[in-house]
Amino acid sequence: MKEIETYIETGILEQYKNVRSHSEEICRPLEIEDYVVQPIVDVSPPKWHLGHTTWFFETFILVPNFANYAVFNPQYNFVFNSYYETVGARVVRTDRGNLSRPSVADVYRYRAYVDAQMEKYLMSENLNDDIISLLELGLNHEQQHQELLFSDIKYILGHNPLFPSYSEKPFFQEIKIPKGGFTAMSAGIYEIGFNEKGFSFDNESQRHKVYLEDYEISNTLVTNAEYLGFIASGGYLDFRHWHSEGWDWVNEQNAKSPLYWHFIDDKWMYYTLNGLKEIDLLEPVCHISFYEASAYASWKGMRLPTEAEWEAASDFFDWGERWEWTGSAYLPYPGYKKEAGAIGEYNGKFMVNQMVLRGASVATPKNHSRKTYRNFFHPKHRWQFTGIRLVK
Amino acid sequence: MKEIETYIETGILEQYKNVRSHSEEICRPLEIEDYVVQPIVDVSPPKWHLGHTTWFFETFILVPNFANYAVFNPQYNFVFNSYYETVGARVVRTDRGNLSRPSVADVYRYRAYVDAQMEKYLMSENLNDDIISLLELGLNHEQQHQELLFSDIKYILGHNPLFPSYSEKPFFQEIKIPKGGFTAMSAGIYEIGFNEKGFSFDNESQRHKVYLEDYEISNTLVTNAEYLGFIASGGYLDFRHWHSEGWDWVNEQNAKSPLYWHFIDDKWMYYTLNGLKEIDLLEPVCHISFYEASAYASWKGMRLPTEAEWEAASDFFDWGERWEWTGSAYLPYPGYKKEAGAIGEYNGKFMVNQMVLRGASVATPKNHSRKTYRNFFHPKHRWQFTGIRLVK
Amino acid sequence: MKEIETYIETGILEQYKNVRSHSEEICRPLEIEDYVVQPIVDVSPPKWHLGHTTWFFETFILVPNFANYAVFNPQYNFVFNSYYETVGARVVRTDRGNLSRPSVADVYRYRAYVDAQMEKYLMSENLNDDIISLLELGLNHEQQHQELLFSDIKYILGHNPLFPSYSEKPFFQEIKIPKGGFTAMSAGIYEIGFNEKGFSFDNESQRHKVYLEDYEISNTLVTNAEYLGFIASGGYLDFRHWHSEGWDWVNEQNAKSPLYWHFIDDKWMYYTLNGLKEIDLLEPVCHISFYEASAYASWKGMRLPTEAEWEAASDFFDWGERWEWTGSAYLPYPGYKKEAGAIGEYNGKFMVNQMVLRGASVATPKNHSRKTYRNFFHPKHRWQFTGIRLVK
Amino acid sequence: MKEIETYIETGILEQYKNVRSHSEEICRPLEIEDYVVQPIVDVSPPKWHLGHTTWFFETFILVPNFANYAVFNPQYNFVFNSYYETVGARVVRTDRGNLSRPSVADVYRYRAYVDAQMEKYLMSENLNDDIISLLELGLNHEQQHQELLFSDIKYILGHNPLFPSYSEKPFFQEIKIPKGGFTAMSAGIYEIGFNEKGFSFDNESQRHKVYLEDYEISNTLVTNAEYLGFIASGGYLDFRHWHSEGWDWVNEQNAKSPLYWHFIDDKWMYYTLNGLKEIDLLEPVCHISFYEASAYASWKGMRLPTEAEWEAASDFFDWGERWEWTGSAYLPYPGYKKEAGAIGEYNGKFMVNQMVLRGASVATPKNHSRKTYRNFFHPKHRWQFTGIRLVK
Repeated sequence: MKEIETYIETGILEQYKNVRSHSEEICRPLEIEDYVVQPIVDVSPPKWHLGHTTWFFETFILVPNFANYAVFNPQYNFVFNSYYETVGARVVRTDRGNLSRPSVADVYRYRAYVDAQMEKYLMSENLNDDIISLLELGLNHEQQHQELLFSDIKYILGHNPLFPSYSEKPFFQEIKIPKGGFTAMSAGIYEIGFNEKGFSFDNESQRHKVYLEDYEISNTLVTNAEYLGFIASGGYLDFRHWHSEGWDWVNEQNAKSPLYWHFIDDKWMYYTLNGLKEIDLLEPVCHISFYEASAYASWKGMRLPTEAEWEAASDFFDWGERWEWTGSAYLPYPGYKKEAGAIGEYNGKFMVNQMVLRGASVATPKNHSRKTYRNFFHPKHRWQFTGIRLVK
Repeated sequence: MKEIETYIETGILEQYKNVRSHSEEICRPLEIEDYVVQPIVDVSPPKWHLGHTTWFFETFILVPNFANYAVFNPQYNFVFNSYYETVGARVVRTDRGNLSRPSVADVYRYRAYVDAQMEKYLMSENLNDDIISLLELGLNHEQQHQELLFSDIKYILGHNPLFPSYSEKPFFQEIKIPKGGFTAMSAGIYEIGFNEKGFSFDNESQRHKVYLEDYEISNTLVTNAEYLGFIASGGYLDFRHWHSEGWDWVNEQNAKSPLYWHFIDDKWMYYTLNGLKEIDLLEPVCHISFYEASAYASWKGMRLPTEAEWEAASDFFDWGERWEWTGSAYLPYPGYKKEAGAIGEYNGKFMVNQMVLRGASVATPKNHSRKTYRNFFHPKHRWQFTGIRLVK
Repeated sequence: MKEIETYIETGILEQYKNVRSHSEEICRPLEIEDYVVQPIVDVSPPKWHLGHTTWFFETFILVPNFANYAVFNPQYNFVFNSYYETVGARVVRTDRGNLSRPSVADVYRYRAYVDAQMEKYLMSENLNDDIISLLELGLNHEQQHQELLFSDIKYILGHNPLFPSYSEKPFFQEIKIPKGGFTAMSAGIYEIGFNEKGFSFDNESQRHKVYLEDYEISNTLVTNAEYLGFIASGGYLDFRHWHSEGWDWVNEQNAKSPLYWHFIDDKWMYYTLNGLKEIDLLEPVCHISFYEASAYASWKGMRLPTEAEWEAASDFFDWGERWEWTGSAYLPYPGYKKEAGAIGEYNGKFMVNQMVLRGASVATPKNHSRKTYRNFFHPKHRWQFTGIRLVK
Repeated sequence: MKEIETYIETGILEQYKNVRSHSEEICRPLEIEDYVVQPIVDVSPPKWHLGHTTWFFETFILVPNFANYAVFNPQYNFVFNSYYETVGARVVRTDRGNLSRPSVADVYRYRAYVDAQMEKYLMSENLNDDIISLLELGLNHEQQHQELLFSDIKYILGHNPLFPSYSEKPFFQEIKIPKGGFTAMSAGIYEIGFNEKGFSFDNESQRHKVYLEDYEISNTLVTNAEYLGFIASGGYLDFRHWHSEGWDWVNEQNAKSPLYWHFIDDKWMYYTLNGLKEIDLLEPVCHISFYEASAYASWKGMRLPTEAEWEAASDFFDWGERWEWTGSAYLPYPGYKKEAGAIGEYNGKFMVNQMVLRGASVATPKNHSRKTYRNFFHPKHRWQFTGIRLVK
């Protein structure tokens, strides 16, 4: 296969090492305590991410393929396994946020052990296409968790009353959104879905035709300044802009602004990875739920793009600052087949009750996005680096 | 407008009376006590349906249009209003199932009063197109509640440990599903959405093109016999067939069969409106959630149709026995605009987290369906008369 | 036994009929719908009270003792049984408030059937002391439910937004509380507990000595006027008066006044069985929780009496208007033994986490109280006719 | 005052240092991660205990009394304050278990800073009786948290699927319970409550007379062997032994044995601070709720002692191995007055819905108990070192 050759040419081991070490770099500024806590069920402790991504390589590559591989610790299977259904009876039921052990040092030892074994294994001559595929999946999986590490670390530190900084250095170079305008797209048949060389997730296939009506899509993301207009005009107080479940969400959460925003001494501040700061009006708005994105669009008399509209037009605007909520539910593409075994649990089983986000964000690892990428979250979620692009 | 003329020709008052009296006929077999209870939040007490549909005509037609109309009871607005958001402060917050008053007799008096006023008003010469549209909406709204009356009455009686019959006479003539086969549909552009004369809901518009791949759709619904095969082969015990949230639902509900099924003395029985009976193997399976429909399809190695696939092929098979779960989330069609005011709350605000069902059921009023009709429920719901059609 | 003779002299059948018919008189003003609803778990539908008290006589007297007695409906056992633990597997689990059947008419038929059988049985010559004891227990049990009927009916109607009256005639002659003063009691050994002739509950025994310090107990109950002073001085806003769990309760309930009080158009109104009325300042305050009683006492710099203090002084003041919260937890008296069988479940199993109330209320049936009577409820409950007497 | 002189003689600073350093010794075997987690709401993270006890000295002694004292970090007030009611608006609401910061190192710095300041202050000549009292309270408060540290650490490690040891050295020298017998006590007036020199909590006062009936109290605690008899005879399956709320607790918890017991490979094991071990039959049973203690007593045909019975007889048996559940609810003694201000919140506000435990346990600091000591927990709690003594 062509893509595998490419992989080998550019150094498969190098790639493995780069991805793996990047996860540890993300965690370097953390105190040990920061690795452990789980403030809400959606946020995993950073040490869990480090262990879980390691467990993936151990379980799906080393155990079945590397002769004489000795599992690091058999009990880690149910500590770091997210595929709970395949696991048998467990003596003690725990939540991730209750687990003080394995310690952070243990988790790093686990990583070092698996990495050393992987290194040996990847130097061997037994790699076939299936294994390369699994390796790619494992690396992309770890990259997804790298973005989750950022979201979860931000949540952990940003919900601490001391508002500690993650980093003293400026973090995430945010762009200033210029004046935008809209790109007009003509009705007709478009093709969407993955058909390039290289890696993609199963949910991006198969490439297929869709018929789109005429639409105009914004060249730029909605800014904090624009979103403040929504807040100032009472957007969070007027049920007419909201889905019925969105309105329930507003009231339950007592939502009045994006996540991490605080109105302190007559100023809108937000928590960033550099601590609490005054809001930058020209940045794209961030950390909003689908409900908020949709209510904002309704207030503007516009709407969110469908994922097909987004993809069809994606060459005509810049993207990559925010995961952009679409108006599309996360459903299988025509002809989608989920793979057998635990790998098949990767995407397909989540295809209900979630919405698709397109693009990438400042927290997405380099080389971990493409215009066919389908991210997905529940409409209430907003701890990801999410934003809004409008269609009219 | 053409359709209004038609309406007038066939007797608009006659239509009003027919629909209104049908709701009362549905309730005739009930004891007064059956009108009052609300066993789960999704089920409304029958007397609430009777009052709420009446409130619709009073609030949207008589109050704004009929000079000197005197509201029957000003407090009924917050008792029978489902559009809670438009209602001001309420002295006492209650749930529908806590309200012993207004009594059933009061509700019938309310109906008689509003019907008499509507009769006078409809005989007057002031009817314009907008009012005819509202009237049509009100009648279709009441028909929707007629089906809900059946689902809710069945839930109330079917969850009573005495399993009382709703009716001694045979109720709902169920068809026997014949051997079926599949209809093959070719890839290409199809048009879906409403474009006939007559009434439709706003969510059926606008008519638009979709591109479909080749597919084959079953000519018949899945039977109880076939569904028993799924149960017998351990379908409810194997997580691989289920969405992740579906599997959580199975475990929380301890689901082992469709709603109303009971395994008693080594036989599968089900509660029907005629009481508890042995299951008829040739009937289409009923009262299943989207999760179950989807798991069944997965177990068969097939899938559910999208709503576009369903509509495009709907002239080639019989439908109308069960609301058929589709694989489509309930989202706005291209160009959908929600109307201003409370009427605009009718459909649009529910367009998140729900799945589309197509067709109609044995409980649907005559003349209250069409192939473009978009019904919708949360994937967990199964107290409606729902079933399965497969695609491969 | 002496008391049994007395019973027979005054006509045991007459007593049975009187008590039984009184329950039905209490329900006479109700609409059928009022019999059915259960707005909160603590409130039972009136028809359940009517059925449950009947089930008691059927299950504990007729079935084991009356030869050839045919049970009215075997399924009523799990519909009307409150002793759930002794009941086997149930096909369908339901809450009382979901049960539209048995209908109210069915329940009255059940009562008539059991009453006719009891009449026959009580005329027979087979009554021994054990049966007389059970009969007394059954009648006292029904009297307890008569008071619950009043509390529950008041809750059902008083939480309806239409505030329907239970009765057009003045209901419950409330006394005006006169100027009071305190009665001084001297330290020493007192005896408390039941040792008279006649019926008492097992929790009133055995009579035993307690040592009390000096105390002074109020001759009168706290009035609405006095309680308004507590509200006006911010009593519901100052955590210092409240137990920690009481303060949580205030905040969860958003409690600002006794139950049934509403501040409307600058006036304090309350719902009574005659509908919504302005508060009578001289009445004893009613419908307060233990937390409120205790916070009020703390605000006054006083405390609630213990149950022993209350009983020891009870001949020196008038009581019977309100169930009076004491500072005593509901625990067994020295030497208390719970009886065997289902009858033993009557009192003993509730002896944790509840507080004792002494006296009686306007809603208590005549002849159903005595100074040794130990009523008990959780500290949060306030739908009973509860009030405050202070000690200093 | 006499007791203060004694204090000064034995070295008040020495005492302060001893108590303070003992808390840190308890935590020495912990990993940093173990300091952070909060598996259930009742368990606090160890670092919170270390910070909270320090905050006590800072807030109640240094801030109001030590001239020019500079608060270590003003934000620690709401991080380490358990007296939430006195605290104003908080920017971010958090649970203790979500707080990764202040770090463990920060907390130790906080301790060192406050200890250095306390040392200076205690060497000064400004100490009056009130301050000595506060100091005593602060030290006893810290000792209470030392026992909580053991319970909470055990819970954290004992609910980890890896069952890590707290200590490799044998920990807690458990006694073997000898054959016991009962001590007979005669009816009469006894005095209970604190009247010695030295420190006591306000809830132990005032000393007062109680009248007790004859009773016999066991000389020994119930052993694991005896408790296994209860389990083996189906004690957890028979509702008759349980309070109604206890039975609900059994079913909700699916309780089948004391906390930390696991039936593995046909053997009863329990988690100890030295890891998972086979149960020692002669040890006193530990980690049981009041519901279990009471059900066990009922199964034996006996009962739990009241706290007065326990105290009156306490010179005649050995105690100190387990906190012994009594049959007494936690209520104020006659004449109890709660102190003004935040100190007054120490005990009085908890006097509802809890049961008294008497004695002390293997985890109680030396010199931190006496026969008048009133410990209290909710009846469902069992993560403390609790046991059973019977009365007949």
